[in-house]
Amino acid sequence: MIVTLQEVAEWVGGEMHGDGTLPIAGARPLQEAEPGDITFLEHERHLSAWEKCRASAAIVPLSIPVNGRPVIRVVDPLAAFVTVVQRLRSDSTPPPPQIHPTAWIDPSVILGPEASVGPYVVIEAGSVLGARCTLHAGVVIGRNCRLGDDVTLYPHAVLYDRTIVGNRVIIHAHAVIGADGFGYRTQEGRHHKVPQLGWVEIEDDVEIGAGSTIDRGTFAATRIGQGTKIDNLVMIGHNCRIGRHNLLCSQVGIAGSCTTGDYVVMAGQVGVADHLTIGDHVIIGAKSGVPRDVPSGSQVLGSPAMPRQETARIVASLEKLPELRKDVARIKKALGWED
Amino acid sequence: MIVTLQEVAEWVGGEMHGDGTLPIAGARPLQEAEPGDITFLEHERHLSAWEKCRASAAIVPLSIPVNGRPVIRVVDPLAAFVTVVQRLRSDSTPPPPQIHPTAWIDPSVILGPEASVGPYVVIEAGSVLGARCTLHAGVVIGRNCRLGDDVTLYPHAVLYDRTIVGNRVIIHAHAVIGADGFGYRTQEGRHHKVPQLGWVEIEDDVEIGAGSTIDRGTFAATRIGQGTKIDNLVMIGHNCRIGRHNLLCSQVGIAGSCTTGDYVVMAGQVGVADHLTIGDHVIIGAKSGVPRDVPSGSQVLGSPAMPRQETARIVASLEKLPELRKDVARIKKALGWED
Amino acid sequence: MIVTLQEVAEWVGGEMHGDGTLPIAGARPLQEAEPGDITFLEHERHLSAWEKCRASAAIVPLSIPVNGRPVIRVVDPLAAFVTVVQRLRSDSTPPPPQIHPTAWIDPSVILGPEASVGPYVVIEAGSVLGARCTLHAGVVIGRNCRLGDDVTLYPHAVLYDRTIVGNRVIIHAHAVIGADGFGYRTQEGRHHKVPQLGWVEIEDDVEIGAGSTIDRGTFAATRIGQGTKIDNLVMIGHNCRIGRHNLLCSQVGIAGSCTTGDYVVMAGQVGVADHLTIGDHVIIGAKSGVPRDVPSGSQVLGSPAMPRQETARIVASLEKLPELRKDVARIKKALGWED
Repeated sequence: MIVTLQEVAEWVGGEMHGDGTLPIAGARPLQEAEPGDITFLEHERHLSAWEKCRASAAIVPLSIPVNGRPVIRVVDPLAAFVTVVQRLRSDSTPPPPQIHPTAWIDPSVILGPEASVGPYVVIEAGSVLGARCTLHAGVVIGRNCRLGDDVTLYPHAVLYDRTIVGNRVIIHAHAVIGADGFGYRTQEGRHHKVPQLGWVEIEDDVEIGAGSTIDRGTFAATRIGQGTKIDNLVMIGHNCRIGRHNLLCSQVGIAGSCTTGDYVVMAGQVGVADHLTIGDHVIIGAKSGVPRDVPSGSQVLGSPAMPRQETARIVASLEKLPELRKDVARIKKALGWED
Repeated sequence: MIVTLQEVAEWVGGEMHGDGTLPIAGARPLQEAEPGDITFLEHERHLSAWEKCRASAAIVPLSIPVNGRPVIRVVDPLAAFVTVVQRLRSDSTPPPPQIHPTAWIDPSVILGPEASVGPYVVIEAGSVLGARCTLHAGVVIGRNCRLGDDVTLYPHAVLYDRTIVGNRVIIHAHAVIGADGFGYRTQEGRHHKVPQLGWVEIEDDVEIGAGSTIDRGTFAATRIGQGTKIDNLVMIGHNCRIGRHNLLCSQVGIAGSCTTGDYVVMAGQVGVADHLTIGDHVIIGAKSGVPRDVPSGSQVLGSPAMPRQETARIVASLEKLPELRKDVARIKKALGWED
Repeated sequence: MIVTLQEVAEWVGGEMHGDGTLPIAGARPLQEAEPGDITFLEHERHLSAWEKCRASAAIVPLSIPVNGRPVIRVVDPLAAFVTVVQRLRSDSTPPPPQIHPTAWIDPSVILGPEASVGPYVVIEAGSVLGARCTLHAGVVIGRNCRLGDDVTLYPHAVLYDRTIVGNRVIIHAHAVIGADGFGYRTQEGRHHKVPQLGWVEIEDDVEIGAGSTIDRGTFAATRIGQGTKIDNLVMIGHNCRIGRHNLLCSQVGIAGSCTTGDYVVMAGQVGVADHLTIGDHVIIGAKSGVPRDVPSGSQVLGSPAMPRQETARIVASLEKLPELRKDVARIKKALGWED
């Protein structure tokens, strides 16, 4: 599919500068674009990359001056570029909603209108789904689950019995929602399972990455607050109450019965011990291990996690530690002390 | 479903104090209970939470004195509360055992009595299952596996060929048992795969969490000892021999050819290097990295892991390290030394 | 199945020493072998284990002198032992290639010759597969994927739309290739999803472990270079370009937009921050956290990762840190300073 620069400018409602008849055959990011492509810049700091880039044209913010190369100026270059990529891609129309004939749906299930249900999906007794849900191949929804509208479940996502999912939630492939929490009582040398009778409740606009696991509560809900985004291979233990608009990066692990505030950010591979409270707007640096509560608004780093600046000072000192030991040995010698 | 306090006391064989006609409509933990609910206390240290709790009644241990509020006194409040939650929940009866018509079971498979096999389960040639196994939707059991009695496999659990599973084992959704170990030989700049011809053997009463992976041995078994409990997203490498009654928390990784004793506990995100021996009753603190053998009975922490007290001392000193550097600089200055 | 030592020697083209009529009933590694078994040694350093081993015979390298016990001498004992294990195992012949009747394959899909497609596999519209691909039970291949020849996908492996896979690639159970990257823009207190319109491209001879996740690029490819081997539960973020012949051990996490050179090794649980460049032949020690670029040829360790020797020096000093504090306190006292 080849279009003109003028057509692209019309797609995105942008201000065109240059030859409108220029043919555009592809849309690729700055590092990948070749002649014939259109690319995009989000900030003025990408100007030097744009100078080296061989793309035929670029979508740029209004703040970038026109300098002779063909550009389309818009308020939001990223959003405009997304539109262009999608329109240039001929295969991007999703198939019309249908219930695949191989889907196995219990007769008691209530499916909202315009549901799209892929091959070998299983929906067990008593579950209720809202409008326009998309269930990809092999999704399993257990008994008595409740899903809102516009939920997307990617292949093989699994919801255990009694899971509650809000509107516009996206759950990626192989995520497991509602498995049993890790709860045992050790008596006479054996670990006896504490039945895990709770459930998981996921509020509106949450996204959960591939392979992540969120365990059901022991007697009540494990909760994921509205708008929170969870990356791949994250583990959230039983009885946790994750706040709203959190960002939990890949491989984070949160042990049981933790509470997080709103707008918490945890970078990759963070671990949080059980029964802790993490305040609002807390930022936890990558690979931190959090052994105690973290007050709202603080930034912590390290294992054990400490205020970010303190950890930075310690790390800087650590690099000087072997030297420090030598100094102290010299001082002791100068003082005539034996080692 | 609404019952009386008297009925609840009879369910759990408890000693009732208060008005037996009190209506009970729900059962929720202390932090969640509302009027109309019954709740429970496990220890006297929860008494202040019980005082604030609006529940209509509580199940309490025999050690708690009666103080006017309606209570049911029992030996084991947690077990009694589990009973109450299950009885109050009308949907908790599991469906009767059946072989779902969409399950694909090779004709050579031997299924024990009262098997429950969900939709789209696959059991390949030569596998033998004991009595009362429950296989949820989408479980895949490879060729020549052997499973004991009362095994539960949650949706999409995968057993590769030749996996051996004991009695009363529970494997959660998306766990992968028996994938190839990470074994290569590098020759002339290429990593050549060493065929992984062994298998995994899981003893009685083991539970394995969602998304965990246990690799097959190279030529023999990777073994998980009796009664060991493994949380979500745990990785156990090829040729490991995990002892009995271990507790391996979420995101633990144990590299190949390790041996653990009995009653080992590894907290979340612990890593153990390959070919190590971890003794009986060892406790490894969260996020520790274990680079060498750990003798029986010891507690280790940190990365590299050291005896817990030593790590605690080092961490305490670390917080003083920037100050220590300043002190040494002052001393050097006082001694008239250049920096 | 019982054979003679002479037959075993012929299978592997080895030089037999001892009684060729000796019956061989099994093949097990040194630590497990019993009378009646043949075992193997790879190095002279295993000679003492061989002396204690009760196996009836061993396959040994040419460098090992004959000392009376029955041995078969070969150039490559591991490869020879693999042959013996496979030939002794009667169940090792894979079933002949077939398309299982329950596989759901869109009519537009092109399958190469001799494809083996298991039960409940799903292949969506527009995908093209090369010759001799093996898709185990429950594999899901999205729309418009392209796979080379001799690809093996284990149960429930998932390829999202537009994934490209080279020749001889192996992907283990529950790996997820091509899920959305973790990309959001936060505006007015909400995290808005950046559409992830790219794809994943996996080159020839790559192996990917169970439960690992590789996210699609935002607008272009996330690339895994030729011959790279990835262990279980590894996470590779969007837009990464992993080089050739890397070894990425279990639970490694690489954040978005990283580049690695060729022959990079990352040990277990390593984390790499986003947008970094890791040079050729870099070795990153277990559990390291990499916060900045790493030049070619270097070995780093620790969190934050530093040159391996520097980290080793710091760790050695750390163990002396509490003592060092005491020394400095004593010095200050000797100087008459208050604390």
